[in-house]
Amino acid sequence: MNNEDVITQDVFENLQELLNHNEIRAFREAFLDHHIYDQTQFYLDFTDDERLELYSILSPQELSEIFENIDFDAVDIKPYLQEIAPEYLSAMFDEMSSDNAADILTNLNKRERRAIFSQMAPENVTEIRNLMHYDEETAGSLMTTEFVAVVANQTVSSAMTVIKATAEDAETIYYVYVLDNDKQLLGVISLRSLLISHDDTLISDIVNEHIIKVDVDEPQERVARYFRDYDLLALPVVSHDNIMLGIVTVDDIIDVIDDEAQSDYSGLAGVNTDNVNQNPIQSAAKRLPWLVALLFLGMGTASLIDHFDGLVSKASVLAIFISLITGTAGNAGTQSLAVSVRRISINDDANRSFFGLILAEIATGLVTGAVTGLTIFIVVSLWKGNMMLGLAVGVAMFCAITVANLAGSLIPVAMDRLGFDPAVASGPFISTMSDLTSVFIYFSIAGIFIHFF
Amino acid sequence: MNNEDVITQDVFENLQELLNHNEIRAFREAFLDHHIYDQTQFYLDFTDDERLELYSILSPQELSEIFENIDFDAVDIKPYLQEIAPEYLSAMFDEMSSDNAADILTNLNKRERRAIFSQMAPENVTEIRNLMHYDEETAGSLMTTEFVAVVANQTVSSAMTVIKATAEDAETIYYVYVLDNDKQLLGVISLRSLLISHDDTLISDIVNEHIIKVDVDEPQERVARYFRDYDLLALPVVSHDNIMLGIVTVDDIIDVIDDEAQSDYSGLAGVNTDNVNQNPIQSAAKRLPWLVALLFLGMGTASLIDHFDGLVSKASVLAIFISLITGTAGNAGTQSLAVSVRRISINDDANRSFFGLILAEIATGLVTGAVTGLTIFIVVSLWKGNMMLGLAVGVAMFCAITVANLAGSLIPVAMDRLGFDPAVASGPFISTMSDLTSVFIYFSIAGIFIHFF
Repeated sequence: MNNEDVITQDVFENLQELLNHNEIRAFREAFLDHHIYDQTQFYLDFTDDERLELYSILSPQELSEIFENIDFDAVDIKPYLQEIAPEYLSAMFDEMSSDNAADILTNLNKRERRAIFSQMAPENVTEIRNLMHYDEETAGSLMTTEFVAVVANQTVSSAMTVIKATAEDAETIYYVYVLDNDKQLLGVISLRSLLISHDDTLISDIVNEHIIKVDVDEPQERVARYFRDYDLLALPVVSHDNIMLGIVTVDDIIDVIDDEAQSDYSGLAGVNTDNVNQNPIQSAAKRLPWLVALLFLGMGTASLIDHFDGLVSKASVLAIFISLITGTAGNAGTQSLAVSVRRISINDDANRSFFGLILAEIATGLVTGAVTGLTIFIVVSLWKGNMMLGLAVGVAMFCAITVANLAGSLIPVAMDRLGFDPAVASGPFISTMSDLTSVFIYFSIAGIFIHFF
Repeated sequence: MNNEDVITQDVFENLQELLNHNEIRAFREAFLDHHIYDQTQFYLDFTDDERLELYSILSPQELSEIFENIDFDAVDIKPYLQEIAPEYLSAMFDEMSSDNAADILTNLNKRERRAIFSQMAPENVTEIRNLMHYDEETAGSLMTTEFVAVVANQTVSSAMTVIKATAEDAETIYYVYVLDNDKQLLGVISLRSLLISHDDTLISDIVNEHIIKVDVDEPQERVARYFRDYDLLALPVVSHDNIMLGIVTVDDIIDVIDDEAQSDYSGLAGVNTDNVNQNPIQSAAKRLPWLVALLFLGMGTASLIDHFDGLVSKASVLAIFISLITGTAGNAGTQSLAVSVRRISINDDANRSFFGLILAEIATGLVTGAVTGLTIFIVVSLWKGNMMLGLAVGVAMFCAITVANLAGSLIPVAMDRLGFDPAVASGPFISTMSDLTSVFIYFSIAGIFIHFF
């Protein structure tokens, strides 16, 4: 990477020094010269005292840009807000884009919000209050209301005047939305096509009416899919009666895609990988709940083996294959789980036939089970010179894998149907569940074969 | 979703009918009216005969847009290219943006490429040939050479003239790059700031020289991180001597982020989840290699238990806890693996101290192992009324989890250091490995305690 602006510890320490020596002008110059992303990292890294100093040096407008860049998933923003004077906060939120302001303000309680709202511009308060009503993880919660709108009977040159006038405030000016007198969305024009059109052309002649738009309560995964499939920079959000409410922009969607991917990944691993830079005690505290819960589920498997203890005393050779069968079935279940979760997240509802999916997964389980079962039958028969033992282990493997495959695909589908996020179904959970059924299958089959060992 | 253009099976069948009845005009009108993404889906869904018909109906330019939208990771593009006449392909690639043309053409062999190149515009051939030299998954392989460039001593109005002239071809016109006479990159101006500046303003007065740029051989993950952190729409790519070579645009980065997430997810599950709509035989074929490989690794665990068979015959109660210990250690290892893979992908090299990471993970393992070991000690002591047995199981659990945690974090770090993608280290692999060590630890410890049972 050859950027000259790579941020080193030196740069940060230099800023701290300027701040602590009250060299306000030099500090402002050095600090504001950095990219807003880096300013934000500095802000979060400053000490409490340094931040208090900062509030007297930066304008509310300058701080608002920093707050727009804080990643709320990773940072608890509340203590920061509480150390700032309400008047300053009011001025800051007045400068901020309404979607970010609404997101940040949900972290405060009603009383704190009221103190801030009381000194803000009333139209901003109304806008923010409206945005705060939308459900989390919907188009409404992602959108901003700062977009550029024109009417159909305007000319290109008058539309350009509108764009120039709103360029400072709008979230993006690269798409211009065409509304009718009732604020209904008629179409879209890119700034690119405005630029290459003649000044006197009517908007209605160049508007693209094949517009891709989303309902305000559309889930964010679906919104992200539109961006991905249609290569969009922004997407208009409308009410149920097609009133244009706002736009979602691509930078917010990148965060959505990232968060969704991470939550799928975390789900599969059975651990939240959100914050990887914790101390060992915090890490352990994050992992233990799942681990201990699964430990108790595993106790079920242990007491099941206990139940079959008579079998093991008769033929201790049976103990040898417990972990092989539970392990392999667990691996097959994890694979099937991952494919199933991914299939649910990719496919549209239309393509999903519940029984079709289940049948396909049973068939896949039968094939993988047959191949694996046959392999282990041959290996065990040769190794132990006992074909009946090989047969028992092979048949048990076959059944255990078929069941694990079925469970691995059924559980996420069932969760999805019941309205839960299927990605929460974790690999460790499937493995531990499948230990239980595999052990039951193994010993039941071994019980039938035991007289032939 | 309230889009009026939702694509139903009816729409598709209607298009097929028009095509098969040779109603060319009606077909063109209906087909081209759809969004390019949907046109692409139709194209891929048509039969062979219908596609051949299509090539005589659509212009090379119209087909080029479809080809720009095909997802090469999911579709094998070669058969499609081979059914099209070379002259048509030449005309099509002449219309296409150079980065996509280069991506598509890598799927053909030299002879086929030469046939296409021979009838293309020489400057396009040179551009595409250059792009084909860049390593996969680097900034160079993602970039396009169609960007807008101006010089510093131009005025805003002359820059706007340049933009309007290149608007049709450029991949994005929303960032304009300022170059010196040697094509070195000096800075960037957004179209937004051009629009709000006075016509006579000099570019040098409004250029932003704090430009974020990447080297042509920068890995794509790092490029994606810039987009995410700095909310970019496009990012300039430069050579080692700061010559501007091209730009990467946000739509390509969304695909990168998506692919990376999916490959992390697939890695963790031990199965490639790229194509989820396969028939059961194909699915099984995809899952079996891993499964059978791990089965043989699992045989190692089985023969280790066999080695301890004397212990099991003496105390068949030992068999009860095999799957509990291997299962729990496997779960802990999977968690630790996921956190470690994620940490590697997020953190910069600068923040990574090999031994610091390992020490932290050992500490986390010790804490989780201690809590889990203590829990199982209490449960087993009470259940079996045998504190020595409880102690043996508890200590074994403690050791097995500490080792699994260490392995789960060491393996991806080691892979990363050796230049492999750490995300390939899969959960099932870690579980199966940890079965082996857990069984060894368990029986070794049980062997010490066995006289007290």
